[in-house]
Amino acid sequence: MSDRNRLIYLPIGGAGEIGMNCYVYGYGPEGAERLIVVDTGVAFPDMDGQPGVDLILPDVEWLEDRKDRIDAIFITHAHEDHVGAIGHLWSRLQAPVYCRRFTAIHAMRKMGEAGHNIEQVNVVEAYPAVVEAGPFRVQFAPVAHSIPEASALLIDTDAGRVVHSGDFKIDRDPIVGEAFDEGLWTEIAADGVLAYICDSTNVFSRHPGRSESELPDQITDLVRNAKGMVVATTFASNIARLQTLADAGIAAGRSICLMGRAMQRMVKAGTEAGILTNFPTTVSSEDALDIPRESLMLIVTGSQGERRAASASLSRGKYLGHELKEGDLFLFSSKTIPGNEVSVGHIQNAMAEIGVEIIDENSGFYHVSGHANRPDLEMMHDILKPQILIPCHGEFRHLREHARLAMSKGMASFVAANGMMVELSGNKPGVVEHIEVSRTYLDGEAYVGQFDGVIRERMKMALNGMVIVAVIVDESDEVIEDAWVSLKGLPEVGSSGAPLQELIEDQLSRMLPRLDAKVLDNDDKLEEAVKRVARKICVREIGKKPEVTLLVSRLMAE
Amino acid sequence: MSDRNRLIYLPIGGAGEIGMNCYVYGYGPEGAERLIVVDTGVAFPDMDGQPGVDLILPDVEWLEDRKDRIDAIFITHAHEDHVGAIGHLWSRLQAPVYCRRFTAIHAMRKMGEAGHNIEQVNVVEAYPAVVEAGPFRVQFAPVAHSIPEASALLIDTDAGRVVHSGDFKIDRDPIVGEAFDEGLWTEIAADGVLAYICDSTNVFSRHPGRSESELPDQITDLVRNAKGMVVATTFASNIARLQTLADAGIAAGRSICLMGRAMQRMVKAGTEAGILTNFPTTVSSEDALDIPRESLMLIVTGSQGERRAASASLSRGKYLGHELKEGDLFLFSSKTIPGNEVSVGHIQNAMAEIGVEIIDENSGFYHVSGHANRPDLEMMHDILKPQILIPCHGEFRHLREHARLAMSKGMASFVAANGMMVELSGNKPGVVEHIEVSRTYLDGEAYVGQFDGVIRERMKMALNGMVIVAVIVDESDEVIEDAWVSLKGLPEVGSSGAPLQELIEDQLSRMLPRLDAKVLDNDDKLEEAVKRVARKICVREIGKKPEVTLLVSRLMAE
Repeated sequence: MSDRNRLIYLPIGGAGEIGMNCYVYGYGPEGAERLIVVDTGVAFPDMDGQPGVDLILPDVEWLEDRKDRIDAIFITHAHEDHVGAIGHLWSRLQAPVYCRRFTAIHAMRKMGEAGHNIEQVNVVEAYPAVVEAGPFRVQFAPVAHSIPEASALLIDTDAGRVVHSGDFKIDRDPIVGEAFDEGLWTEIAADGVLAYICDSTNVFSRHPGRSESELPDQITDLVRNAKGMVVATTFASNIARLQTLADAGIAAGRSICLMGRAMQRMVKAGTEAGILTNFPTTVSSEDALDIPRESLMLIVTGSQGERRAASASLSRGKYLGHELKEGDLFLFSSKTIPGNEVSVGHIQNAMAEIGVEIIDENSGFYHVSGHANRPDLEMMHDILKPQILIPCHGEFRHLREHARLAMSKGMASFVAANGMMVELSGNKPGVVEHIEVSRTYLDGEAYVGQFDGVIRERMKMALNGMVIVAVIVDESDEVIEDAWVSLKGLPEVGSSGAPLQELIEDQLSRMLPRLDAKVLDNDDKLEEAVKRVARKICVREIGKKPEVTLLVSRLMAE
Repeated sequence: MSDRNRLIYLPIGGAGEIGMNCYVYGYGPEGAERLIVVDTGVAFPDMDGQPGVDLILPDVEWLEDRKDRIDAIFITHAHEDHVGAIGHLWSRLQAPVYCRRFTAIHAMRKMGEAGHNIEQVNVVEAYPAVVEAGPFRVQFAPVAHSIPEASALLIDTDAGRVVHSGDFKIDRDPIVGEAFDEGLWTEIAADGVLAYICDSTNVFSRHPGRSESELPDQITDLVRNAKGMVVATTFASNIARLQTLADAGIAAGRSICLMGRAMQRMVKAGTEAGILTNFPTTVSSEDALDIPRESLMLIVTGSQGERRAASASLSRGKYLGHELKEGDLFLFSSKTIPGNEVSVGHIQNAMAEIGVEIIDENSGFYHVSGHANRPDLEMMHDILKPQILIPCHGEFRHLREHARLAMSKGMASFVAANGMMVELSGNKPGVVEHIEVSRTYLDGEAYVGQFDGVIRERMKMALNGMVIVAVIVDESDEVIEDAWVSLKGLPEVGSSGAPLQELIEDQLSRMLPRLDAKVLDNDDKLEEAVKRVARKICVREIGKKPEVTLLVSRLMAE
């Protein structure tokens, strides 16, 4: 260990994936750096990869082992993939949390729900206010994004200034919240930027990003021309969009009704934080029942096809007494996140079956992205002129492309995926260490490691079905009675036409009494023998090798 | 039953979904119509909906019950979602199969693999050749699509002419195969068209479709400018694209190597059918190992991210001795089918990790769709001028939109989804009957019904995990020994820190001896009691309600 102080950057989540953002910065002598954490986000599971899992959290084992060195946790904004894990992880990190007011409302609720002291969450004013955390001086620089009070972090140490972009876009008129301010960023860059750790989500989008302010006229026209009920969905946290949608409804002479818990919670938070100052008066879903459908606009949750959200419920039938009808208009003022196409397709089809007109992102007019497109990224590169650009928040292909872009413009750049510790200080910035990081699954109320085998076992049962066998062995290692078999997730009858369960039971009952005592005595060997028989019959009968579980009841001498 | 002959149309698959096309036409007195089947396609399962399933087949129970009335099966083209089920379903339909030469090569292979007589497959010449099948006279009218010898069917009865579009696009220069011929279609429409049953896949694409002939120059430029190895993937059946890709490679001075079984099979079939007449000479994958990578182009399977195909294998490491390196170019000359975004994303990320440059559909230059866009659909409407237009091959939203479009142009039109029997003849065409149709799953070698409960059981195990309990009850209905418990897909330890398995075993061992004989005597009641205990502990310990399976071994008096 040298006495020289070094500045390190270690992504734990979000670098090599979209979602679950969690980044670490450290400053100090090697191995004794003081640490800060930027964001504690979640990712969302799917049947394909994590059946039954409720949430995916970053694996903070490395941080937990060093928790006495953590000076602070900073949250850039209130999206779930940045703040969602704070309640789940805080007890393992135990450092004060800093964020701006709107973000704090959400962080505090999550801390409270998890039983932590909400006073650990500190509300911070935006730039030029400074948070001192160990050797770090950190400022929240406002950026435009699809949620209020999103911020980049200016992270200063004696090694120089690092700008951590957070999620951002360039928007000079974002309707709600802070507009892009080139002067501010020029000022931030004035004394030089050592490294820019930058959002990469939209690096493949080659046209300049569009402003939120392009939407109101188009959406108002759409609503004005609608004949039946109008329903619009977007991310509840996209408060600017909620404002735009509600304003459009009012302009078209309709009453506005918000549906879905998240929708109401966000409007409340926006109002509390003083961000939503002229949101139209809304009507309750009960009162909305008395309003003629051609005078009503619902703004609802569920833009990603979530099964339990308002959009899905409406597509299946009634929701809070409201029902879609032929001639209604349903607007997806949102982007379908990759992986959600099928769920969104399901509800769109159900709506089409009713005869509802559906407008979605394919129309190109009623949604703008919250992330910086390639030309916007380049504009930020040009303003900040960092010595080093490290892409974050993206899948590997996004990181790679962003690094390539930065290098082509003369910056030092490379891909640092989750677990790759980078030294930013010194003569030759680069990866200095690889940390094992996986993911933690919240499963019900239990935390399960990605590689614990629990989820792999579930997937095997789902793919292969299961044969369960019970065998009774007495005190002298003799099998007493026949084997009992139960099938789960397997057809009852195979090619021979005989019940599969009976075929396996019969064959086991013939095989078991002939087994050697050394096999019968040993659970593993016995299971192996039973598995062989069960699988052989299944392959012959149904062309499939199921999972096999054996329960041996060993009777004891009284 | 009336003596009047009627003409009916009954979609069994493909109407309300993309894939698994299977349509029935009938002509004759009500309830005694002679029948023909158009296409017997498959759909592909996913973990989300059909874990472990190998293929999804149409449910042909209705047809099987009437198989003595089936005069013929017609296959429009050789895509799996049109021909894929023929081997699996033929024995239940048992009617002669008619298709064109290229399609027949595939249909015969499938029939042979399933052990059926391949002579049931009859090769038919294109229009104006006629197949007589009961009261039907059927002609194969060539259309452009992304596979050779795709055809629409002209289905004539005394009730008039029905045109079944098959999958098609308007392409006046498709590179390989038959160009769109307006004169031919004018001739076909000359005596009037009663009904047009029409592909709806691209009804939401508002720009006119692009021709395959727009691609060669662009792809050649791309390959010519590449520095390292070039790998291109597309659907193997898109023979025109294979020709375009191979020609581009040759023009850029590269040797061509085909990889993946389907790729080689398709080129062979194209050559046998006399369609590929000037495909460049290729090198074997072994010989390709001796060729410098900058002089090599691989054309490989796996454009949809299929785990076992060549693209995925290359992304994971070596495949047949070949390895992707930094600076190579990988071209997806294909569209990612909705639902496959995540798998394609996986392999693109793995390639990005290696440093491979990836070009995909987002570039907009290297792929054109095989389906007619909205203006092309309208062109066909205008040429054929059908009295009735019934949309097929599409999800509900596509069918709905296509029907709306047709009505706006003055045609009679409505949505007929799977199971809705339509009468086309008579004064007022419309739905006359609803047939229960589901889907059949090929699971290993067993056929499982969509609603048999087998797959639902698998999904429940995957979502909830499973507790397996073995209990021994003796001849006098007394529980002997303690209960034995095994956990599958569940964490070993919950909130109390004690092993979950032991907690359940202990609680059961306390509860079981206290049970009433009436409960112990009855498997269902006993299972209910055991389930209650196991679930209660799991909810408390891990916040989850698992599946519970009980095996009761009932000892008999000797």
